[in-house]
Amino acid sequence: MSYETLRYEERGRVAVITYDRQERRNAWNPPMYREAVAAIERANASADVGAIVITHDGPVFCAGTDFKAEPEPPDPQTGRRPNVATLSMAQDASWLHLLARSKPTIGAIRGAAIGLGVTQILPFDIRIGGASSTYSFPFLSLGLMPELGCTALLPRLVGYGHAVDICLSSAKLSAQEALDIGLITRVAGDDDVVAEAVALGEKLAAAPALQMQLTRELLRENSGEHDANVVLARETEAFVTMFRAAKEAKKKAAAEGA
Amino acid sequence: MSYETLRYEERGRVAVITYDRQERRNAWNPPMYREAVAAIERANASADVGAIVITHDGPVFCAGTDFKAEPEPPDPQTGRRPNVATLSMAQDASWLHLLARSKPTIGAIRGAAIGLGVTQILPFDIRIGGASSTYSFPFLSLGLMPELGCTALLPRLVGYGHAVDICLSSAKLSAQEALDIGLITRVAGDDDVVAEAVALGEKLAAAPALQMQLTRELLRENSGEHDANVVLARETEAFVTMFRAAKEAKKKAAAEGA
Amino acid sequence: MSYETLRYEERGRVAVITYDRQERRNAWNPPMYREAVAAIERANASADVGAIVITHDGPVFCAGTDFKAEPEPPDPQTGRRPNVATLSMAQDASWLHLLARSKPTIGAIRGAAIGLGVTQILPFDIRIGGASSTYSFPFLSLGLMPELGCTALLPRLVGYGHAVDICLSSAKLSAQEALDIGLITRVAGDDDVVAEAVALGEKLAAAPALQMQLTRELLRENSGEHDANVVLARETEAFVTMFRAAKEAKKKAAAEGA
Repeated sequence: MSYETLRYEERGRVAVITYDRQERRNAWNPPMYREAVAAIERANASADVGAIVITHDGPVFCAGTDFKAEPEPPDPQTGRRPNVATLSMAQDASWLHLLARSKPTIGAIRGAAIGLGVTQILPFDIRIGGASSTYSFPFLSLGLMPELGCTALLPRLVGYGHAVDICLSSAKLSAQEALDIGLITRVAGDDDVVAEAVALGEKLAAAPALQMQLTRELLRENSGEHDANVVLARETEAFVTMFRAAKEAKKKAAAEGA
Repeated sequence: MSYETLRYEERGRVAVITYDRQERRNAWNPPMYREAVAAIERANASADVGAIVITHDGPVFCAGTDFKAEPEPPDPQTGRRPNVATLSMAQDASWLHLLARSKPTIGAIRGAAIGLGVTQILPFDIRIGGASSTYSFPFLSLGLMPELGCTALLPRLVGYGHAVDICLSSAKLSAQEALDIGLITRVAGDDDVVAEAVALGEKLAAAPALQMQLTRELLRENSGEHDANVVLARETEAFVTMFRAAKEAKKKAAAEGA
Repeated sequence: MSYETLRYEERGRVAVITYDRQERRNAWNPPMYREAVAAIERANASADVGAIVITHDGPVFCAGTDFKAEPEPPDPQTGRRPNVATLSMAQDASWLHLLARSKPTIGAIRGAAIGLGVTQILPFDIRIGGASSTYSFPFLSLGLMPELGCTALLPRLVGYGHAVDICLSSAKLSAQEALDIGLITRVAGDDDVVAEAVALGEKLAAAPALQMQLTRELLRENSGEHDANVVLARETEAFVTMFRAAKEAKKKAAAEGA
């Protein structure tokens, strides 16, 4: 499988997806969005892969939506032309839904993340920034609005006060500012970001895949849940699932050994 | 329109409301609360205004509820005397409801914000503190309890752990401490706070009013929402509203030009 | 009442519970869990006590679940052997439920909190760490998963991004890192942690017990509540409860004086 807008490789147990459409500063047009989805699905389908790093070549991680994108042919059913927004924000099939059911994802941002280029990293599990990476939310200053789940995911990461300030003032944050408020959780030297992300990916890949997936689901479902009984029942259920899977595996191993 | 307890002025597109009841350290009594509401409504009604700065004269932003307030005449319907708490916490007509439907608000706190003086700034969109501003939550040490939405808004801004510590220990925070935990998002020199707030207000006022209002609603509704479909549907709906308004404006302009 | 695994004492109005099962690094087995519960219930029942400090002897606050715990006899009703997880996570009777209905709790962590040793402190009201205290979440690296409400309480304290990073990467945090993200809210010198916790406990104990309990309930119920009317109605109801209690107390005092 080859791609026009990105590269896909597996380093050990970590899939590394590198945006490379530098002539448009890695801005997403529909073909690039589809390739990003396909590359993540490929990592999900690869038995060897336990974690996914998403990074970029060039000084810009992603400049947002490519406003010069070629118009797509109309959808035969709806008659409407799909664009990056309708594709990535589709009910039940959005970028957020994709990442929720994917292997753990780590963003490795060495440069500028702008607009959709920063909102797209909010649903990643972990975000690592290079020392000179930047995070720009120019929506309102362009007469637009935050999208791709930003209005839910940003407050969840940085708190409501910072989220409102950032969105209303169309802020641009340095790596240090992003770290201070929790938009990213790690900073590395610009030349070390990808290596550090891959090393972290190896660590995540070393954990049992079932427990990793259950833990991510628990965090997603239980964060914001205030009923202690519901919270504890979900955690207990996850342990039951884990024990059952171990029992099944043991039985299967015994049967195969017989 | 003139006021007894505050000043109202418009600087460019920014309304500046300055508390000035220094003989009671800007503590709210019912007349002052009503004037604060009236001044905000005036800014909302002024076509020129795109953002509202709320600040103060004197060393205290607001000392809380004025416990020496003159008793109000009883409400003819309920027979009860209104006070600052019943006025500002009224169902559907509270300080929180007012600010949610107002133009974007920026608090410029040069001095001490105490009790209701600090809980009243929590629903502002943005809080800027002077380097020597302070934030006191003396409720429990006075035998009282946090109010005016503090028990919901404070955790939303600073996280649950800090909110509990602050409320239970009746904490007083410095500007730096308030910044570190997200109670305020910006610090300026004491003499620069108002100028910086007005400059930020000009920036907010420069954004299209509809997109500004929709963005603030999205953040309010989507923060705490964990269903990705609901989150994305709201953001998509906001874009539809924006496009429709642009179309209407174009049609109207064409009709007027015809 | 004497204990095998901890000490209980009252210093002024503060109950101090000191884990002391150092031969197992204060890891919880069922008897130790039951003694911790009993000690907290004793503090709740003591009229003199207004706050509870939970701390430890030895270099480890608690090493988590004691995997060498003696098996318990089967429960006659279910036929299953209780363990620390089933005891502490029981519906309606969990560690979280206990702490929610207890007097305010302060964790004083001088050393290492590991696994269940750190998740057990998340429902405390306030966490104070010694300068060299550490906080380890080794669940996934051991093939296990976060428990005891961690997947709800950790994001509430440190934000979603840090919670995911910590859990997925099996992180170990220093006191400074824990402070920076809000896992603890105070740091003290290692030798001063307990004294500072007791001093803070005295401050909490000095507040009226009813207002203290109502404030903690309001924070628990209103954090995460986005309907302003619901938030304000709860706060108003708490004031009504407070005024009624004061009236009752006055009437009772008058009757006794008569």
